[in-house]
Amino acid sequence: MAQSPALLFLLLFIFATKTIESTQIFFPRATHQSLIKQAKDPKLSIPYKTQFFPQLLDHFTFQPQSSKIFYQKYLINDHYWEHGAPIFVYTGNEGNIEWFAENTGFMLDIAPKFRALLVFIEHRFYGESLPFGKDSYKSAKTLGYLNSQQALADFAVLIQSLKKNLSSEASPVVVFGGSYGGMLAAWFRLKYPHVALGALASSAPILQFDDITPWTSFYDAVTQDFKDASQNCYEVIKGSWAELQAVSEQKGLAELSRSFRSCENLHSMYSARNWLWTAFVYTAMVNYPTEANFMMPLPAYPVREMCKIIDGFPPRATKLSRVVAAASLYYNYSRTEKCFKIENATDAHGLHGWDWQACTEMVMPMTCSKDSMFPPSTFDYKAFSEQCMRKYGVLPRPHWITTEFGGNRIEQVLKRFGSNIIFSNGMQDPWSRGRFQGKSFSEMKCEALSLFVFFFLEKNGTVMECPLRYKGAILLVSSLRRCVEKYISQHHSTGH
Amino acid sequence: MAQSPALLFLLLFIFATKTIESTQIFFPRATHQSLIKQAKDPKLSIPYKTQFFPQLLDHFTFQPQSSKIFYQKYLINDHYWEHGAPIFVYTGNEGNIEWFAENTGFMLDIAPKFRALLVFIEHRFYGESLPFGKDSYKSAKTLGYLNSQQALADFAVLIQSLKKNLSSEASPVVVFGGSYGGMLAAWFRLKYPHVALGALASSAPILQFDDITPWTSFYDAVTQDFKDASQNCYEVIKGSWAELQAVSEQKGLAELSRSFRSCENLHSMYSARNWLWTAFVYTAMVNYPTEANFMMPLPAYPVREMCKIIDGFPPRATKLSRVVAAASLYYNYSRTEKCFKIENATDAHGLHGWDWQACTEMVMPMTCSKDSMFPPSTFDYKAFSEQCMRKYGVLPRPHWITTEFGGNRIEQVLKRFGSNIIFSNGMQDPWSRGRFQGKSFSEMKCEALSLFVFFFLEKNGTVMECPLRYKGAILLVSSLRRCVEKYISQHHSTGH
Repeated sequence: MAQSPALLFLLLFIFATKTIESTQIFFPRATHQSLIKQAKDPKLSIPYKTQFFPQLLDHFTFQPQSSKIFYQKYLINDHYWEHGAPIFVYTGNEGNIEWFAENTGFMLDIAPKFRALLVFIEHRFYGESLPFGKDSYKSAKTLGYLNSQQALADFAVLIQSLKKNLSSEASPVVVFGGSYGGMLAAWFRLKYPHVALGALASSAPILQFDDITPWTSFYDAVTQDFKDASQNCYEVIKGSWAELQAVSEQKGLAELSRSFRSCENLHSMYSARNWLWTAFVYTAMVNYPTEANFMMPLPAYPVREMCKIIDGFPPRATKLSRVVAAASLYYNYSRTEKCFKIENATDAHGLHGWDWQACTEMVMPMTCSKDSMFPPSTFDYKAFSEQCMRKYGVLPRPHWITTEFGGNRIEQVLKRFGSNIIFSNGMQDPWSRGRFQGKSFSEMKCEALSLFVFFFLEKNGTVMECPLRYKGAILLVSSLRRCVEKYISQHHSTGH
Repeated sequence: MAQSPALLFLLLFIFATKTIESTQIFFPRATHQSLIKQAKDPKLSIPYKTQFFPQLLDHFTFQPQSSKIFYQKYLINDHYWEHGAPIFVYTGNEGNIEWFAENTGFMLDIAPKFRALLVFIEHRFYGESLPFGKDSYKSAKTLGYLNSQQALADFAVLIQSLKKNLSSEASPVVVFGGSYGGMLAAWFRLKYPHVALGALASSAPILQFDDITPWTSFYDAVTQDFKDASQNCYEVIKGSWAELQAVSEQKGLAELSRSFRSCENLHSMYSARNWLWTAFVYTAMVNYPTEANFMMPLPAYPVREMCKIIDGFPPRATKLSRVVAAASLYYNYSRTEKCFKIENATDAHGLHGWDWQACTEMVMPMTCSKDSMFPPSTFDYKAFSEQCMRKYGVLPRPHWITTEFGGNRIEQVLKRFGSNIIFSNGMQDPWSRGRFQGKSFSEMKCEALSLFVFFFLEKNGTVMECPLRYKGAILLVSSLRRCVEKYISQHHSTGH
């Protein structure tokens, strides 16, 4: 656990990025491959009991099939727990729950102090929590039940039932989550304040919807991270896309396959492009100041390391050879890969669920500006929705998330409504641009009536996110703990 | 409008009341008949434009059929409105929207002062807002989409779209509702604080679920209302049920039909019983201090008038003859009925939807204590759920409402979360026992950070509910208006 970064990430779904030169849409499949690897080999350093909860298929309709039961997985650790003490719940996101349990150190760190029960609930349609077993991903008819509101209702029902079964109805509940799980944690506190008295939402881009956050912001942030590491590195990456295109056109896919050390001959230049794209984006997302292994095994400050590789080539080396070498740091830091599965990466069930969510509710428009290190692109909603229709037979609902959960002028809304939500973000995290932009770190408040608490580490700080055992983050961690402590002591003094 | 009571009622669904002597379950059909009458003849004294909004069938799943569109009716009056001024929305309940628009004077009263737009949104599956047209009530397959969460989402989508179409996104929205509509208004502010900045929830028994409120409380309150009018009246009614049974057994249904002036021969003693029961319950619910015509045309203080009839009979008159005469005040105050349709009252579509809701989510257990004016009864959940299964093919979810919306220790929850919700209740209203029990009238607060505001008129006061043009309620009305005013001025000063 000591080396695991504690805060998590949204599985990226870069959709409908209509580049100027092409309408090819980028799906970072390679990532899924890496996730599957990890997911199949969870090394839980703390013993959790695995349980399954009989959950309703559809909380929001009462059709005959709505009452179908499926078994939702959750992990539970009562090692520190005392009856009546707090319950810390991780609101699982888009993957196997073990993966998130393994990578969420903060809950375990603070559990002894609070004598807290630890519960990690798997999100429906991920991991083993498959309402229709192997058929869960078959079509929109089954996938239709995969969405955030149903997931939140699952959490509420499970938590209430668990408290009842433990005869510990008065136990205060605090929810924790990172990335999409962080969005769920924040939304859970907003929608179910009677179930959870506080939420810690890490790296939760709840404002990445509609036009609340500029559409270029995500890739601007990635670009800035690389530019900050080295101006030359940025320029090489920016120039590499044209080279890639040229090599593909002039020398063909066979040559491209060799340059990329592809295990099989590539069928499309775009596979190679996506492979590079994925490496840069995910590395920016996991740019931890410590060696870590969340998405992939990576050294400390992997963006800097990638740029060192790019900058370290002899002067006449091509841009393409440099970026391929840099991307290989992401895919092969452990040096176990002899070649790369660039096309047709394995895609087991339970992990591509995010594509479905992005095609229905999680519509996060993203574009690349002309200054981006990626090729400039626009967001073509029509192409995107047509693609979703082709793929799943449903149309996206691009304004639903902001209607259901809000987002516009959220600061004003939360000022008069809601409390006990901690939004934490590292400012280098590409997702941080779609974050809740509340008060600065110095204005952090935990008072009983504080309406929200918001932290970030300054951009010029050495840490990006909050890796919990990294010493630069000690203040942050202890502040987080103090907040949770206050929520709970409020509860004990007032009954909630 | 001047004579209309302004605050509304829950259509009563007295279910699974297993009386000691019988398992017959009471459905107050006669009421539906009266509602249909009213609903068919709306006399809207203010001109509303009728509009239809293309609404999604299912907001919470993404199955292919979820995106089916139906047309949701709403009424709109922009007579007082200025661009950017507030929008007052009535969150429609279980009936035709015209009926609620006609009987909600407060919104119209305060509209000129606020230059407010008035919008009354019909609840899905009621009135003309039928997702499957005439087939809407066919089975659980269609009815499955009728529930409160879908209704709240409808309101949110419609309001957001309306504001956009009016190019008035910054208009503050306040929601209003009575009875079930009041529950919806309160829940709407809790779940959609980014859409509505305040709510006025009148007579909203949001705590009538699970075992939050004692199960006898509703009938205890009805009983108390009659007892307060006259102890003898209470005793006569209490004794009449045994007489009814005896007459039925000894003299038969033909004699019973004559006593009740039934248009057709009765087939069951229970029809007569339900007819009486309905009259007493609904009269207690509409015990206005002014002549009114909400459920039925009735004189001022109709409970007192009923008791005068009961007490005014010659000493040797039977209890049964007295209660039949008293009930006739409810059914025939206008003296237009030559006989009563006690069995097989017409039941048009759109009005028995409450039975479905009560069989699925709105499980409000109610029993009669031995001191009740009604026969003692228990709540037999098993019998109730079996009945729902037989009738609709679905089982109730008795704990769902409290999971989704809370209820237990709600005062503590709202203390730290939520704001700008006015709960108003008259203490004689039988539903008031399941109300939000917050601060007393004198402690009412409207301050920016007030967490909730709660009013009631003291039980020893002359008014029960808040009939808005009744002079005893002037203070209440002006306070309500001041609260709404504050919510809106907060909005103007801070952007929300």
